[in-house]
Amino acid sequence: MQFQLTDDFINQIEQLISLQDGDALRELLHDFHFADVAEILEELSFDEAVYLVKLLESEITSEALMEVDDDVREKILDRLSPQEIAAELQEMDTDDAVDVMGELDEDIQKQVIGQIEDTEHAADIVEMLKYDEDTAGALMAKELVRVKDNWTVAGCVREMRRQAENVTRVHSIYVVNKSGKLIGRLSLKDLLTVGEKTKISEVFIPKVDYVTVHTDNEEVARIMQKYDLEAIPVVDDNGVLVGRITIDDIVDFIKEEAERDYQMAAGISEDVEADDSIWKITRARLPWLVLGLFGGLGAVLIMEGFDDALAKYEILFFYTPLIAAMAGNVGVQSSAIIVQGLANDNVKGSLFNRFVKEMGLSLINGLALGTLIIVVNSIIGKPFDVSIAIAVSLLMVIFIAAIIGTFVPIILDKRGIDPAIATGPFITTSNDIFGILIFFYISKLILGF
Amino acid sequence: MQFQLTDDFINQIEQLISLQDGDALRELLHDFHFADVAEILEELSFDEAVYLVKLLESEITSEALMEVDDDVREKILDRLSPQEIAAELQEMDTDDAVDVMGELDEDIQKQVIGQIEDTEHAADIVEMLKYDEDTAGALMAKELVRVKDNWTVAGCVREMRRQAENVTRVHSIYVVNKSGKLIGRLSLKDLLTVGEKTKISEVFIPKVDYVTVHTDNEEVARIMQKYDLEAIPVVDDNGVLVGRITIDDIVDFIKEEAERDYQMAAGISEDVEADDSIWKITRARLPWLVLGLFGGLGAVLIMEGFDDALAKYEILFFYTPLIAAMAGNVGVQSSAIIVQGLANDNVKGSLFNRFVKEMGLSLINGLALGTLIIVVNSIIGKPFDVSIAIAVSLLMVIFIAAIIGTFVPIILDKRGIDPAIATGPFITTSNDIFGILIFFYISKLILGF
Repeated sequence: MQFQLTDDFINQIEQLISLQDGDALRELLHDFHFADVAEILEELSFDEAVYLVKLLESEITSEALMEVDDDVREKILDRLSPQEIAAELQEMDTDDAVDVMGELDEDIQKQVIGQIEDTEHAADIVEMLKYDEDTAGALMAKELVRVKDNWTVAGCVREMRRQAENVTRVHSIYVVNKSGKLIGRLSLKDLLTVGEKTKISEVFIPKVDYVTVHTDNEEVARIMQKYDLEAIPVVDDNGVLVGRITIDDIVDFIKEEAERDYQMAAGISEDVEADDSIWKITRARLPWLVLGLFGGLGAVLIMEGFDDALAKYEILFFYTPLIAAMAGNVGVQSSAIIVQGLANDNVKGSLFNRFVKEMGLSLINGLALGTLIIVVNSIIGKPFDVSIAIAVSLLMVIFIAAIIGTFVPIILDKRGIDPAIATGPFITTSNDIFGILIFFYISKLILGF
Repeated sequence: MQFQLTDDFINQIEQLISLQDGDALRELLHDFHFADVAEILEELSFDEAVYLVKLLESEITSEALMEVDDDVREKILDRLSPQEIAAELQEMDTDDAVDVMGELDEDIQKQVIGQIEDTEHAADIVEMLKYDEDTAGALMAKELVRVKDNWTVAGCVREMRRQAENVTRVHSIYVVNKSGKLIGRLSLKDLLTVGEKTKISEVFIPKVDYVTVHTDNEEVARIMQKYDLEAIPVVDDNGVLVGRITIDDIVDFIKEEAERDYQMAAGISEDVEADDSIWKITRARLPWLVLGLFGGLGAVLIMEGFDDALAKYEILFFYTPLIAAMAGNVGVQSSAIIVQGLANDNVKGSLFNRFVKEMGLSLINGLALGTLIIVVNSIIGKPFDVSIAIAVSLLMVIFIAAIIGTFVPIILDKRGIDPAIATGPFITTSNDIFGILIFFYISKLILGF
């Protein structure tokens, strides 16, 4: 039942575009879901995509434009006139329209706003543009069904029919008092089960979760997930109902956050995809590699500082990649657990308790790995004193790496910086340097070179 | 407006539990949201949590039990009798009940099923238990609103009132023919806008997205996200409507998948949280550290094989952590991009094209980093021939690491293995070894030791 985009189909569309056969294209794509149209747009060249956007109804293309990759949308919009952009925005929900406006230059923004036919819609967009990008005010849509508490159920149904035209999906009906303040909600289910003449004030549910325009997106996502909400109303500073956020926006937000954290942990600093250009991918990756390079050069300098040990204990130098790898792995593990814990809001208890716990963890891991290395080394015939030095410093390296991995994200988080930065190359590079320094220092103490 | 769990409040509850003051507890927690009750359960000791679960209404505790951590739920269920578990399951939607059943021993399962009062609910649970855990059949809930195409709108509303009692939220009304096959849907909005005597067959929308009981969860998530669906109906092999999946289950699924991939990339093999026990965390982390340890020992053996170079080119040995770090970082970056691309289904084009692209990427990164190292080395006074050897082998190491990072996940994916395994410690460890081997081999060719 799912639409499957084939090369043949794309070829057919490309041919029709080259023939400028608008009628055949409209006929062919008639009844297509906007998500499928979006997939088609992504496969076409920009010229072809622009042609198709101009050709098809704004009702379809406005939604499709919201589904394509940001870069693709930006390039297509670049090729549309302010009037054509306005026609697309006219069909979008306010939250989507605001996202698109945010991608335009300021002078184009003004021209576009002037061209939107529905002045109320235009005013809503202008109002929402003033909210901070990461807050409920920018994420919400203005479209919702709102009823007054002094209406009857019959009047309410009548009014809902009118309002529902602008609302894609009715989740909940929000009840406001005469000054527009949110005072409760009404489920569609309830509306079906009471008499026509019943007053809304008698049946509405006064308990309603809400957020304010200033609540940040992460908090909105947390509340909606915790309470399994599919939509949440947004109020302004006076408690007046101004919009609602639906779960599909939150799904996108959660996915984007997760992908960003994942990429950050892998040392990729921009949102890139496997099919992006080589230049874009290089820009996202190279800075972290340069960081790693300087970390490696730091390790070179440390080892040069200990090179008098080379004559007698050259074997120590063979173990540096092992030490660096263990320091890196432990650091990444610790930081990943903390970063996820911070995101899910379940890092509780005092810093001291956490310190004790990390000490316990390191002790167990360090003893296990240290013993293993002594056993393996004695099997492959390495000197015992060197094995002891390696095992002891490994224990210490693991401990320090765990402490850095745990507390750097916590400190960043307390200072309002995204703790996800402190995963991946950042933590492996710093732990490489600390690890090798500790390794040689402790080996020197034990072996006395 | 949000409930904020304080230590004082927990103390108060603990005190009431120790006094066995059931009435006061019921009074205190009356009207609490189940998600908040879940938070409270997680803060209490097991004895206290069990007491509270037995005390409060199953209507609340059944939902709260679904919100607490799996471990906590398992331990609480261990302390309940089959009859008490049945009382909880009685109140759950089938999908949740099936999840809980999956956590019980088989003989307990049978006893519990026998104790569920609603025999239809019990039969639904037994039926769903036979579906594979990762498919729509196991994820769906049986509770939904279903109307027949030959009903009138009035009859439909009447029937919906009856059915809606068992359905937490009405998303869509599914239309079936007389043999129960899914033939379309009806939106609540539509229902409000047509006359009472209209036949459903005249107003329903025949176009409806659906999945089968065998569709795997990842595919369900992909479809629901792509088409922004809030619920999707599930049909059996005969096209008969058997259940529906709602977006909140998908939100949980997406989050779990993202967290699992993230943990896998960080070298954590079980689902652990910051507040899990030291033993559980060790079990999840130690295996990867042991892998890293053996990788490090492999590097030791490689370097021993090249130790005749030590006399003249000891400096090469100082650069091994740098080489290993670069190989690891490049490998993790490449694999992360591919793993995400595979998850989002946007890795397109032939393998050969991808190979050429990775070659291009490596060339750019390798030339940039190689040049950088030659410049830095000449500033800090390293011999030029050694710098050239390091730069050239760095280029080669980056290329091989990118190829391994890109193609190992692709190959795993083609064989039906989760490509996320091939990120993190797995890729860094194998790249460490390959990197160091290539580094010494190429240096030997260039420097001739």
